[in-house]
Amino acid sequence: MGPCPEAIEAAKAMVLMGGRYMYGDTDTFVDALAAIEGVKKEYIRAYPGSSAPLHHAVLAFTSPDRPLIVAEPGYEAAAVAAGANGAKAISVPLTKTYAHDVRAMAAASPAAGVIYVCSPNNPTGTLTPREDIEWLIANKPAGCMVLLDEAYIHIAGVPTCADLVAKDKDLIILRTFSKIYGMAGLRAGAVMARPELLKQLGRYNAGALPSAAMAAATASLKCVDLVPQRRKTISDIRDSCMSFLKVKGFECIPSVSHK
Amino acid sequence: MGPCPEAIEAAKAMVLMGGRYMYGDTDTFVDALAAIEGVKKEYIRAYPGSSAPLHHAVLAFTSPDRPLIVAEPGYEAAAVAAGANGAKAISVPLTKTYAHDVRAMAAASPAAGVIYVCSPNNPTGTLTPREDIEWLIANKPAGCMVLLDEAYIHIAGVPTCADLVAKDKDLIILRTFSKIYGMAGLRAGAVMARPELLKQLGRYNAGALPSAAMAAATASLKCVDLVPQRRKTISDIRDSCMSFLKVKGFECIPSVSHK
Repeated sequence: MGPCPEAIEAAKAMVLMGGRYMYGDTDTFVDALAAIEGVKKEYIRAYPGSSAPLHHAVLAFTSPDRPLIVAEPGYEAAAVAAGANGAKAISVPLTKTYAHDVRAMAAASPAAGVIYVCSPNNPTGTLTPREDIEWLIANKPAGCMVLLDEAYIHIAGVPTCADLVAKDKDLIILRTFSKIYGMAGLRAGAVMARPELLKQLGRYNAGALPSAAMAAATASLKCVDLVPQRRKTISDIRDSCMSFLKVKGFECIPSVSHK
Repeated sequence: MGPCPEAIEAAKAMVLMGGRYMYGDTDTFVDALAAIEGVKKEYIRAYPGSSAPLHHAVLAFTSPDRPLIVAEPGYEAAAVAAGANGAKAISVPLTKTYAHDVRAMAAASPAAGVIYVCSPNNPTGTLTPREDIEWLIANKPAGCMVLLDEAYIHIAGVPTCADLVAKDKDLIILRTFSKIYGMAGLRAGAVMARPELLKQLGRYNAGALPSAAMAAATASLKCVDLVPQRRKTISDIRDSCMSFLKVKGFECIPSVSHK
């Protein structure tokens, strides 16, 4: 769908200011996101998309002695980061309802450094229930972080777990503007976690953020109808596609995402 | 000065395509830079500016046992990265001509992991002679990398050391489009080194690059008059400013940069 018109205008205006770092526009973006997510701004750090904070969270909390736990099938980027860090990635199959099997993931290794949960999942488009995520945070190994990738959460229309970040849990949430906001090429995203955890991720990062993306992300957040409108468009297309496939005799995984 | 008109047009056009990752435009940028620098494209990796590859080079090649060597006064980012990595930063004063004291830097620690040279230097704007950089590469401790920050080299108008990268030396060169190209907010840059070294830096990195910045950087590289024209503008202003200050009785460090 691409960036919304307001985001396009904001980004174009920022291109003309491209000679300046515009650090203040990153702060403005963080403030806007903090207000929407209900967390303090110190609990959010802006990134150019969510790939970098995903990678850095795995670098920060796994090691050759502290493996990564992932779901299978799932998004492969976390395992790539573990490989770059000399850490093992342990795969745990999804449940029969295509949710993350949080009990099996919590039990996969007593030394686990990170348990990666993508909900809705990529590529199945299926949710892991909120109560399972809460159970996982309460029952994971000590010192292990739950890395929750909410890249597709706006498409599903279910509540975020940002309130658990606000409660200082061992939880790191990833946000991207590459999906429902249509800004994959502009590069805007964020990570939410308590400041002590953000500091550990920040060890791997340096440099200003793309000002056009920051301005476009802020403009998108101000468009209150954008997410529900796009969610409806996507779900209408998804439902129509699945109905067609079912009539043709195919079985479909009950995705709530755009996958 | 901001981005040149061609860069502004390219970036604006890419904003309209902001919904797509546009990986191919990063490849196009790398190809264009490789042709200008005279290195194979496998020796270049694009980044959003040069802060990230500077940081990642220090992470990759320093450790608590392998210190960073920097000049004093110098750009402080490398020492910040060393601190994030638990590595010591050893400062070596500039020479009387405000060049890096490469002999003292090579001798600063037999365990040195990275020797950081910024030429022209930030903040003095002074050059370290090419023969000193060659001497440093030939005489540094084994396994140590020379990290050469050429952020301001276009302003000085002296040749790059990219030919030494092409010869597979223990040399990592940083390039940014934030200075003479006027694209600080758009975020484009690159690192040049032999592929084995790029792979080690790449362990700390993930995610697509800002497409508007990549397109603007490529457009800027095509403007062959841009660098000499801006160099002249900057040096004219610098000379005028220094003449004024000297008449007023001030002494000036003989900067060849815009500092």
